[in-house]
Amino acid sequence: MQNFIYDNKTRIIFGKDTETQVGEEVKQYGKKVLLHYGGGSIKKYGLYDRVVASLKEADLSVVELGGVKPNPRLSLVNEGIDLCKEHDIDFIIAVGGGSVIDSAKAIGFGAKYEGDVWDFFTGKEQITNTIPLGVILTIPAAGSEASTGTVITKEEGLYKRSAGSLLIRPKFAIMNPEVTYTLPDYQTSCGACDMFAHVMERYFTNESDVDFTDQLCEATMRTIIKQSKSAIEHPNDYAARAEIMWAGTIAHNGLLGTGRIEDWASHVIEHEISAIYDIAHGAGLAIVFPAWMKYVYKKDVKRFAQFANRVFGVELDLNNLERTALEGIERIKLFFKQIGLPTSLKDAGIDSDRLEEMAKKATENGPFGNFVNLDEDDVLNILKLTVE
Amino acid sequence: MQNFIYDNKTRIIFGKDTETQVGEEVKQYGKKVLLHYGGGSIKKYGLYDRVVASLKEADLSVVELGGVKPNPRLSLVNEGIDLCKEHDIDFIIAVGGGSVIDSAKAIGFGAKYEGDVWDFFTGKEQITNTIPLGVILTIPAAGSEASTGTVITKEEGLYKRSAGSLLIRPKFAIMNPEVTYTLPDYQTSCGACDMFAHVMERYFTNESDVDFTDQLCEATMRTIIKQSKSAIEHPNDYAARAEIMWAGTIAHNGLLGTGRIEDWASHVIEHEISAIYDIAHGAGLAIVFPAWMKYVYKKDVKRFAQFANRVFGVELDLNNLERTALEGIERIKLFFKQIGLPTSLKDAGIDSDRLEEMAKKATENGPFGNFVNLDEDDVLNILKLTVE
Repeated sequence: MQNFIYDNKTRIIFGKDTETQVGEEVKQYGKKVLLHYGGGSIKKYGLYDRVVASLKEADLSVVELGGVKPNPRLSLVNEGIDLCKEHDIDFIIAVGGGSVIDSAKAIGFGAKYEGDVWDFFTGKEQITNTIPLGVILTIPAAGSEASTGTVITKEEGLYKRSAGSLLIRPKFAIMNPEVTYTLPDYQTSCGACDMFAHVMERYFTNESDVDFTDQLCEATMRTIIKQSKSAIEHPNDYAARAEIMWAGTIAHNGLLGTGRIEDWASHVIEHEISAIYDIAHGAGLAIVFPAWMKYVYKKDVKRFAQFANRVFGVELDLNNLERTALEGIERIKLFFKQIGLPTSLKDAGIDSDRLEEMAKKATENGPFGNFVNLDEDDVLNILKLTVE
Repeated sequence: MQNFIYDNKTRIIFGKDTETQVGEEVKQYGKKVLLHYGGGSIKKYGLYDRVVASLKEADLSVVELGGVKPNPRLSLVNEGIDLCKEHDIDFIIAVGGGSVIDSAKAIGFGAKYEGDVWDFFTGKEQITNTIPLGVILTIPAAGSEASTGTVITKEEGLYKRSAGSLLIRPKFAIMNPEVTYTLPDYQTSCGACDMFAHVMERYFTNESDVDFTDQLCEATMRTIIKQSKSAIEHPNDYAARAEIMWAGTIAHNGLLGTGRIEDWASHVIEHEISAIYDIAHGAGLAIVFPAWMKYVYKKDVKRFAQFANRVFGVELDLNNLERTALEGIERIKLFFKQIGLPTSLKDAGIDSDRLEEMAKKATENGPFGNFVNLDEDDVLNILKLTVE
């Protein structure tokens, strides 16, 4: 087991009607708030009104910036930075899913920096200051509500890159499972895949002696499988929605990676697909992960067999663990299909004519991935496995 | 699932040699430190020297108070309070296990109060201020390193009572599994039982739709069972020591209780035993828990059968779940015996002539316990089941 620091200070306020507490939570951080959100769904279902009422009741002055799109864009981040500087904003509230939260995080540290916020995404600058941020989560998926990272897409060149710091972890996350009843099935499924992938990026490690966190990972993955199917069958099933929502936070709040070296190669590859084709991140992961697994499983057949057995209940074939391991990969594809996700580029209606370009861009800073380190050829081979 | 707030800000610094970072961690909180510890073992094995060296290197001035005993006493807490006031202490460092940490917590809020610190343990006062506190953990057991509670024994009348607040959660916990190599087997076992009990107090709930946290609980309990046996066989097994240590924190940092109504009856009953007989808390729990389980399992046979199946691998007898449930209770007794713990008062050499007195004291503020609410008669019946 590796030495580690686990330092997660996000206050989780979870359950029915919790969004009405947002004003009280924000008060301690100042008077001027940027309210950041996406499209119209938060207005359509009344969430926007309840949030604004709570902020007004707490005597906060509110500046708004809506319009965040999936795979959030640098241009809107820059707009937010200008607004924060102009209005001397004390606190940012992100109402939405991972895209809105990531956009809000980037606005937060961009507003405390005189240069180009993209510098933090190229590694030129480290984050040392930010406007604090709170979240009202509406889409369980990215885990950004309690994570240290943000992923932003620069339109020019279609670069999708990440930045991170303990400083940008949200101060609080308000999580009411009821607001997810109205999510389209496809979004529920993409979210389930995203959080499942967050666990897998941690699960597939070469670190020995991490059985405790293995088991916590497995519990989380089993929960995601079971409850996402329930939620799609019964969208108003509070228990299913609540368990998915909490599992999505645990999947990415750092706990499941404690003591382990994480991988993250599949995320890097997926970012190249969704940067070019603007496919939902969760759907892209459903395409990339099984291909990555097929390409790398021989590195540790026992771990893949354990995954198959403990997560999907595949019987352990002790005389042929490889068969068990491969069955696990089939089961994960089956799970993604069951919840309506594509598991190949073809399923997603994406041509395979830009694989070389994606492999090149993914590795332009060198090979990546810790379970198996991947160079440009490896990435191209994995992408070829995603075609159909 | 219940609404919940999960707000755990303790920074965990985990792994080999981490105690040398204590000075750096403390610096931000001030200059004057109270170093609080127990007996001689931290001096015998060099930990004391490494801690003091790190504090000196960070230019901190140190006042010491050793001598904390298991089931920590109010008289020493009062001594600590006087020291803090006299030296205007900024920060308290607890080097030890749950007793030292609990003593340090009580000193922290006692020093910010003009009245008798026992007022917080009788419920007369609520904690509103404290000297902040950090921990160097040497005994994985109580989970106090990241919890909001403290348990102190008042010598006069032998009252063992708890107090709690988000304010008294330690700022950081430094956890080096290597310092636990020298723990006597009995202490390792008592610690394992204590943390196992912390999970069970949360696991046995009447709340429905908490399968995710059920599974996290089960993973934690399986880890404690497996790794405590390993650590007793091989005291210098880093992996086993590390997994136990981290499991002990997770068992009691609040995560496993999210969305659930917890029970805590067995702890209340055990406190009466250890207040009178000064038996180790973990050993007392090994005596009380199986008796409590036998007395209450009919309230939810399915949950007890699930426990038996998922934690101990007992085959589910779908035609006779009660048999499965009862087998689980036998298995937990077997586990406690395997690690050398008593499972009856007789095993522990304790007479059964004060059961009525304990039942009376335990219920003097009324019935308690949420899975099954217990009155004086119930407690007496459970105590009778502990006799042999």
